[in-house]
Amino acid sequence: MSSKKGGFTLPGEAGYEQLTLELAEKWGADVIRDSDGTALSPELLSAGYDIYSTICIIREHNDFANAHPNCRQQTILCTPPKVFTGDHPFEINLMDGFFEEQFEINASEESLALWQVYDRTQNKPVAAWKYKNGIVSFIGEKWHAYTVSFFAYRIWEEISMYNHLTNNWQKEHLMQIDPIQAETMVYLCGWMESWCQNHPQSNVVRFTSMFYNFVWIWGSNPNNRHLFADWSSYDFTVSPKAFTLFSERFGYEMTLEDFVNKGLRRSGHTVPDQRKLDWMSFINDVVIKEGKKLIDIVHRYGKKAYVFYDDSWVGVEPNHPRFTEFGFDGLIKCVFSGFEVRLCANALCDTHEIRLHPYLFPVGLGGLPTFSKGGDPTKDAKVYWAHVRRALLRKPVDRIGLGGYLSLTNGFPDFVDYIEQLSDEFRDIRDLHRNDAPATLEPRVGILTAYGSLRAWTLSGHFHETDRHDLIHVLESLSGLPFDVRFLSFEDIKSGVPDGVDVLLCAGKAGTAWSGGERWADHQILESVSQFVFGGGAVLAIGEASALGGYDTYLRLAPILGIDMDDGRYFCHGKWQYTCSPSDLLPENATLSERDDIRLMNAETKVLHGSDTPLLTAHAFGKGKGIYLSGFSYSLENTRLLQNLILYATGESTNQKYLPDNLYTECAYFKESGTLVIINNTDSEQQTRIPADKGDLQITLAPMGIAILR
Amino acid sequence: MSSKKGGFTLPGEAGYEQLTLELAEKWGADVIRDSDGTALSPELLSAGYDIYSTICIIREHNDFANAHPNCRQQTILCTPPKVFTGDHPFEINLMDGFFEEQFEINASEESLALWQVYDRTQNKPVAAWKYKNGIVSFIGEKWHAYTVSFFAYRIWEEISMYNHLTNNWQKEHLMQIDPIQAETMVYLCGWMESWCQNHPQSNVVRFTSMFYNFVWIWGSNPNNRHLFADWSSYDFTVSPKAFTLFSERFGYEMTLEDFVNKGLRRSGHTVPDQRKLDWMSFINDVVIKEGKKLIDIVHRYGKKAYVFYDDSWVGVEPNHPRFTEFGFDGLIKCVFSGFEVRLCANALCDTHEIRLHPYLFPVGLGGLPTFSKGGDPTKDAKVYWAHVRRALLRKPVDRIGLGGYLSLTNGFPDFVDYIEQLSDEFRDIRDLHRNDAPATLEPRVGILTAYGSLRAWTLSGHFHETDRHDLIHVLESLSGLPFDVRFLSFEDIKSGVPDGVDVLLCAGKAGTAWSGGERWADHQILESVSQFVFGGGAVLAIGEASALGGYDTYLRLAPILGIDMDDGRYFCHGKWQYTCSPSDLLPENATLSERDDIRLMNAETKVLHGSDTPLLTAHAFGKGKGIYLSGFSYSLENTRLLQNLILYATGESTNQKYLPDNLYTECAYFKESGTLVIINNTDSEQQTRIPADKGDLQITLAPMGIAILR
Repeated sequence: MSSKKGGFTLPGEAGYEQLTLELAEKWGADVIRDSDGTALSPELLSAGYDIYSTICIIREHNDFANAHPNCRQQTILCTPPKVFTGDHPFEINLMDGFFEEQFEINASEESLALWQVYDRTQNKPVAAWKYKNGIVSFIGEKWHAYTVSFFAYRIWEEISMYNHLTNNWQKEHLMQIDPIQAETMVYLCGWMESWCQNHPQSNVVRFTSMFYNFVWIWGSNPNNRHLFADWSSYDFTVSPKAFTLFSERFGYEMTLEDFVNKGLRRSGHTVPDQRKLDWMSFINDVVIKEGKKLIDIVHRYGKKAYVFYDDSWVGVEPNHPRFTEFGFDGLIKCVFSGFEVRLCANALCDTHEIRLHPYLFPVGLGGLPTFSKGGDPTKDAKVYWAHVRRALLRKPVDRIGLGGYLSLTNGFPDFVDYIEQLSDEFRDIRDLHRNDAPATLEPRVGILTAYGSLRAWTLSGHFHETDRHDLIHVLESLSGLPFDVRFLSFEDIKSGVPDGVDVLLCAGKAGTAWSGGERWADHQILESVSQFVFGGGAVLAIGEASALGGYDTYLRLAPILGIDMDDGRYFCHGKWQYTCSPSDLLPENATLSERDDIRLMNAETKVLHGSDTPLLTAHAFGKGKGIYLSGFSYSLENTRLLQNLILYATGESTNQKYLPDNLYTECAYFKESGTLVIINNTDSEQQTRIPADKGDLQITLAPMGIAILR
Repeated sequence: MSSKKGGFTLPGEAGYEQLTLELAEKWGADVIRDSDGTALSPELLSAGYDIYSTICIIREHNDFANAHPNCRQQTILCTPPKVFTGDHPFEINLMDGFFEEQFEINASEESLALWQVYDRTQNKPVAAWKYKNGIVSFIGEKWHAYTVSFFAYRIWEEISMYNHLTNNWQKEHLMQIDPIQAETMVYLCGWMESWCQNHPQSNVVRFTSMFYNFVWIWGSNPNNRHLFADWSSYDFTVSPKAFTLFSERFGYEMTLEDFVNKGLRRSGHTVPDQRKLDWMSFINDVVIKEGKKLIDIVHRYGKKAYVFYDDSWVGVEPNHPRFTEFGFDGLIKCVFSGFEVRLCANALCDTHEIRLHPYLFPVGLGGLPTFSKGGDPTKDAKVYWAHVRRALLRKPVDRIGLGGYLSLTNGFPDFVDYIEQLSDEFRDIRDLHRNDAPATLEPRVGILTAYGSLRAWTLSGHFHETDRHDLIHVLESLSGLPFDVRFLSFEDIKSGVPDGVDVLLCAGKAGTAWSGGERWADHQILESVSQFVFGGGAVLAIGEASALGGYDTYLRLAPILGIDMDDGRYFCHGKWQYTCSPSDLLPENATLSERDDIRLMNAETKVLHGSDTPLLTAHAFGKGKGIYLSGFSYSLENTRLLQNLILYATGESTNQKYLPDNLYTECAYFKESGTLVIINNTDSEQQTRIPADKGDLQITLAPMGIAILR
């Protein structure tokens, strides 16, 4: 039985009341939640636990949707480019290639008025075209490729569509309704009121999440089913009505092309232009305004309102200062990784809860068995906990929880025991943060992206969905490092890098929101960063940070970094020969991303590591430094490398008090209570030495062990 | 002793008259040439051989240059970007970083009037600045990076500078004089006249080459000595006088920035804009006009004038139709590779001669020993001959020759014997071409680049200088394949791919003259290529052919190829799953360039080879085909792959008459004489079967063997 209680949300399971109560006791749960699709029995409801109830507000209203088809949610589709080869009539069948169970053309008058036919060969719109029975026809220019952009209703809520098709569900296709239509909100408020009346035992209404899902456009061909998917896209928030309201507020018209972007769309990884930022702001406003109506109802019934930060989270923007306007009492985030813990902890609300993995499902990520034959859920839980725990040491959340079906734990007693141990670790760590905070090292890190704090501690979805981007690896490392971290947009630094930042970090591929792309065209940004570094600050540029075509150097930070990247422009240019300057910044087994396109700009730039090509360099610029790193991939060794680089960038020693010498261990020192927490991030025993105020401390930690020393 | 005579140019060596005459007899030489820096003795001059004399017309005139310093050649230099950090006065020392023995600032009034100071942070020129004593000063904007572009005299002819510094020569530094100045040409014509009078035994004057060297800008720091080098650049043709003459002819002013291009310069690998093409045309005109004066003098003395196609070749442009205006009697090209044979054979003049490698020097390419301890010049000669011979089978040249010092052959008797054998092979092959030509396969290949025929059979220099470009590998393979090949510019195909082309081939990295870069913005080009393929033609796109930002697809040929390249734009897009279509196009040991950024555009594109990513694809477009190949690297196996692809693209069988089944052998069938030549391109014995008109022919060839069957 757990030594401490509370801060644990258990998914209750109908038919397994006894098991539910046993595990609640063992794991120290204080809350029971109804799992998707199950209703809790009276026995559980009256067992003295708080009750969370799950609501996905925009689906399960098919009667209303059928009666008000204009209230269904929409999106903009763009047909694949079709070449006009001279055969008349030239016709484009709008639904060719799209999954017909997901989409239905919206050919209403106000919709048609916004559609666009484009000549993609010449990047210009076509003025005259006709629509009839799913087909757009027009006079084309021979050999040019054309697309049609149009509004379509989404006639199958994507999450249930996915479950249907993946798990062979046979239920009625659920539709999602759009809060932008006044009728929808009148209906939903009534529904919410009635729901509250019918669920007196529920203490907390957990919204999943609000109205608009991330984009997920499916194709008709099973060999290319997922045409476009992006967790941070606003592509599912559009409608002619929304366009009208937008222009009334912002004074200019959005076009379908703003979303379609030549057919490529604008994923969250691209640099957002002002029109996109305006649209996000507009939708955020709608979601807050309409969402708050529902939350107010919940509050009126004496219940709390939590938001589950997933699926239909678009427009909620928990990192935005306006998030507090919803009035949510708590936020729940499912986590695989450390950065997701920080993402959850960062939201402005009373209660932060993380949903741990693995979920209590037979099969986990990527189709591998979890709670079924061949699965090892205990091992899985340890892997995720290793990522999560180190982040929890830096910033607390208030609660943990599990999801899925408790009955699946039968046959996995070691898992049941491990969760008991994990829950106690969680509560121990959480309690340390009360009126206290772990010590941080001197350098304060500012992460520079095109989004700034709006996308603090995230890119777009889980680690495995974005792991081709350096920055998510950086965030995962940073999530457990003893640095103060903030997130800055280019607007934030335009008139000067703000106080409280010692190392400005920028990491990403050319042309992305993460590396900054065209944001670096602004000379004021360069002036600001130059002044910052020249005065003693540091820039840590990773991958293709600040890459932008059209200037003398490909990396706009080249004068500060003392290196540039060869995008082909230097083919006939000689290279500086160099010898590597010895450094102890790179721990054993740390890795540098191999690339062959980095070149020195002068004789003064120090190459700290490299082969034929510099991969890690340092360049003095005034009193400060420009550091370049070829790329970053998360590992414990590379996490230590990052820590070393941040210290080195600011002239600090890499050997400091409360930094364990063994990089497979980390520690946090809580000053107020004088408590030192040391964790072993590996599944093997580790010895580590920690320089402390009262001399060195030697300790041996069991695999995944934790020591809390006061 | 050689069984045939003639077509062989021997470098004579003073002091080794007997050896010279012996080797001339053994190798069948009919011409003796004075080596650089040696004068032939009366014994050799009167031995009955024709005599070639070498002249580098623009150097060895230091007295004239000193008396007319304005007649020295110039270039434009651009200082490295320097950041203004607020320290007044802001000064840029022009010669900082440049090799002071190579350059001297031209601060004349007409020069200063053209200089440009640029703010590189904002890409804008600075209006007000001052120059004094090598330093430009001005008021900068804080944190912006600035450059100064200026004219400089070149005070040390680069080839002799290189020899001085590499071989520790101690002679007087030679300067080069500029034919754009009228005084220079008056002087040079007088000099030429006098030279002819003083060299009655010389039958041929070999110019090396004409006036302007390829660019070679040296730095002051030995760790970055070669700042910029490009064999096809016109950067050494500039001067204020030339700018004036240019504007008089073309009606607009060139600027230093046209050459400087943000400090990156414009190498031959970049896409030339119209201003650059105009400049090339202008200089070509100057070189023809002034060069012809010298050639006319040579002719007046009853001598022939040959041009050595190297070093100071800029402006000669042997591939340009105007080349005939010089009146050259012959062209000599030093060759390592097959494509250089074709480059030589392609020039419009009477006599084509190739200079074989290895040169008779102690040390060869890259510093490895040749005619010295540890060297194996016979092996080297075979390696080069293997490349050269297969090209000679397709297109003849008239002569071969060696360079260097004959005395070095002492101690290498096998080399002396091998050259005898090689010379006979050459003469045999040459003679077959008389009134005859080898049969070609049906498909005719058009190579599309931004230069078209102006850069037929070359990029910029030797193979090893350009081997990071796919196209040079393609050219090397094609140089010995039985296809008719022509070179097309975008202008050539704008109003339709010309008749006589069945396969349009485009190969190269994004943004280069070879892949086409911004030339693909022109919709008429796409219309033309589309029409060509739709009607039954084929496109073979290699590497990043037709890549261009700003459109719906990164490859502009995507609609024809059925694939696109992911430059980051498809991060959130799903991929078509595929299975490879079986094909026998890829010979054993052929290699495909690995890349991870190719994606299918539709379900119809066939993947012929690929792993996680398609690497070789075929897509039907009308009656024709678009073929994509991920990259191309020269090898015998890949040469066969290329042959297969060209046949496959046009629907021809890859098994045809007179195609040996063993890819390590090749053959040429001369129809008129009914002669079949079969060569073994390897250093091991090969058996091969050749389908012929009268049934299959089986033959075994010795290493590097040749069989001539009538």
